Amino acid sequence: MSNNTNIVFESYPMIGGDGSNSYTKNSYLQRAGANAVKAIIDDVISEKLDVEKKISSSKSAFRIADLGCSVGPNTFIAMQNIIDAVQQKYQSQGFASHMPEFQVFFNDHTSNDFNTLFASLPPERPYFATGVPGSFHGRLFPDFSLDFVHSSFALQWLSKVLEELLSKNSAAWNKGRVHYASAPDEVAQAYTVQFAKDITTFLDGRAKELVVGGLMVLNMPGIPNGNPHSSSVTGLSFDILGHCLVDMAKEGLISEVQVDSFNVPIYVASPKEMTQLVERNGCFSIERMEITQPRARDDGLNSQAVTMHLRASMEGIISKHFGTEIIDELCDRYCKKHEEFIDLLESKYNEGNQLFIVLKRI
Amino acid sequence: MSNNTNIVFESYPMIGGDGSNSYTKNSYLQRAGANAVKAIIDDVISEKLDVEKKISSSKSAFRIADLGCSVGPNTFIAMQNIIDAVQQKYQSQGFASHMPEFQVFFNDHTSNDFNTLFASLPPERPYFATGVPGSFHGRLFPDFSLDFVHSSFALQWLSKVLEELLSKNSAAWNKGRVHYASAPDEVAQAYTVQFAKDITTFLDGRAKELVVGGLMVLNMPGIPNGNPHSSSVTGLSFDILGHCLVDMAKEGLISEVQVDSFNVPIYVASPKEMTQLVERNGCFSIERMEITQPRARDDGLNSQAVTMHLRASMEGIISKHFGTEIIDELCDRYCKKHEEFIDLLESKYNEGNQLFIVLKRI
Repeated sequence: MSNNTNIVFESYPMIGGDGSNSYTKNSYLQRAGANAVKAIIDDVISEKLDVEKKISSSKSAFRIADLGCSVGPNTFIAMQNIIDAVQQKYQSQGFASHMPEFQVFFNDHTSNDFNTLFASLPPERPYFATGVPGSFHGRLFPDFSLDFVHSSFALQWLSKVLEELLSKNSAAWNKGRVHYASAPDEVAQAYTVQFAKDITTFLDGRAKELVVGGLMVLNMPGIPNGNPHSSSVTGLSFDILGHCLVDMAKEGLISEVQVDSFNVPIYVASPKEMTQLVERNGCFSIERMEITQPRARDDGLNSQAVTMHLRASMEGIISKHFGTEIIDELCDRYCKKHEEFIDLLESKYNEGNQLFIVLKRI
Repeated sequence: MSNNTNIVFESYPMIGGDGSNSYTKNSYLQRAGANAVKAIIDDVISEKLDVEKKISSSKSAFRIADLGCSVGPNTFIAMQNIIDAVQQKYQSQGFASHMPEFQVFFNDHTSNDFNTLFASLPPERPYFATGVPGSFHGRLFPDFSLDFVHSSFALQWLSKVLEELLSKNSAAWNKGRVHYASAPDEVAQAYTVQFAKDITTFLDGRAKELVVGGLMVLNMPGIPNGNPHSSSVTGLSFDILGHCLVDMAKEGLISEVQVDSFNVPIYVASPKEMTQLVERNGCFSIERMEITQPRARDDGLNSQAVTMHLRASMEGIISKHFGTEIIDELCDRYCKKHEEFIDLLESKYNEGNQLFIVLKRI
């Protein structure tokens, strides 16, 4: 019953409010990622949701949680899409008269801007809205109290900073880099181990909270099986960030020690890795596991838009480490450097950079 | 299923954050009111809660809602007290092995400072915490999804400003006053009618949301049956506020029109009134209905403390109408005037000024 409140998880809130640098205004890449899988989610609900079981076992509302929801609008779009698909399933099966009420639980870290989230809830929503503060690496809900779990672009965040990367005496000392994508194996291994721990606690929690037969849809950055870490779009993006920071250190704008001690706590998983972790947990069947290729805009990558997006997601964690005063300069450099690498990034995008998973509680 | 989102309810948020004027730091009078009824709530749970029914009908968590919770700490104390009493009841009945998990829904208007509420949640809480934004005059939860409803010092707030008090042509024009306590009958009648409407929608909503056998505890300002409106402590307090504002208008610090158009949307109900409204609803049995007399401090009323408390509760609504610049001056005058009337206020406190109600969903 404890909410795992003894454990302090790191939180990296997106920029709150609805200003020009906010996550609200700069999250369309995540939205493109969500749109890319909307049709698959519709299919999954149509094929896999056991409506008869729900009707026979419980008269309660259909409860949906969005884990790592941030401040909208993406979470509202995702929840509406899921409810539309569930309602469609009830109707197509002839159970329109048993249509449940819907209750949506919007979850994110306690430091998330829930005030903005609540103020921007769609006025005509077909559900009862609730907010749930806390880390999804701990327990958030009572046993068997959810029918559907959704999480989009949240599971890639590691629950803690990797200490072994910070010690000069460690084989995993990550000097002159801010990520594992182009780093020695020891660095990547440290990330891999932490990611496995995090997914394990995540799956353990959800296994308790989801009803048997409940579905879980996970969407996150991904890399095709067998590809080197250095070939992921996400990895390349952080390599570019690392180059910019190293340049700024060389020019004396920040210190080298600051760069060496900064590591972006984001992991890019392959289908094979996630399959192993789900199988080890043992409480879920894998209904879908695929690398997809989202497209924000038909006219290709736009370095300025990507930079705004990076800023909305990462400004919090970068400011905390380097101070807010470097952000504008860093973003200018990032945008220019991103343009230099745009052909390479385009080609990697085309290989697929998003991991889409559907699990069923068995 | 609609969340009554087409209707716009007035909201009067308490002062957020945790500064020296915040509700967090200035809500001990409400806490004293809650403490005064803690023993009664313990008794009610011990006597009236049907543990066997809960165990036999549902394996789900025990769900508690606090309606109009504000930002704490009172809501955390109240929820802990209720959970302690429920656990005690399970143990004393020999059902310790069936102890449920607890899920608490903290509800208040969307404009409530949920960020502060979430940040100050007790770290060692024995429940899963959720926040529910919206007016309790509309629907907030799915059908039959709550086991226990609590609301402390929230139901006295009317859901809207009374327009008939504002028209010079109306018999209920409330010129030179800010409340109904010492006003003509027409003014009091307008308040009474709106209060009845509000309690009706409140009870209609909760009747749908509470399980059969579920308990609802309501605590609010109250007045003994048969006493004139002008004799309630709450009414006297707003008379004092009105005097201060009229004085400030006479001195030209604010305009007379501003005072005439300001009416504190707070109602003080008698047990008889509430009994009639509950009986008219028809979905609840009345388990307790009594006037109680809380005591914040053993050494009597303290005008400065009462003023701080008024400020934490009322600054929002006063600032919205008169502007923030009058608040300090108004509070100084209020404190002095309160001291003048302190003997009268003391005597009225002793007659009881709090209405405590326990209802059971039948």
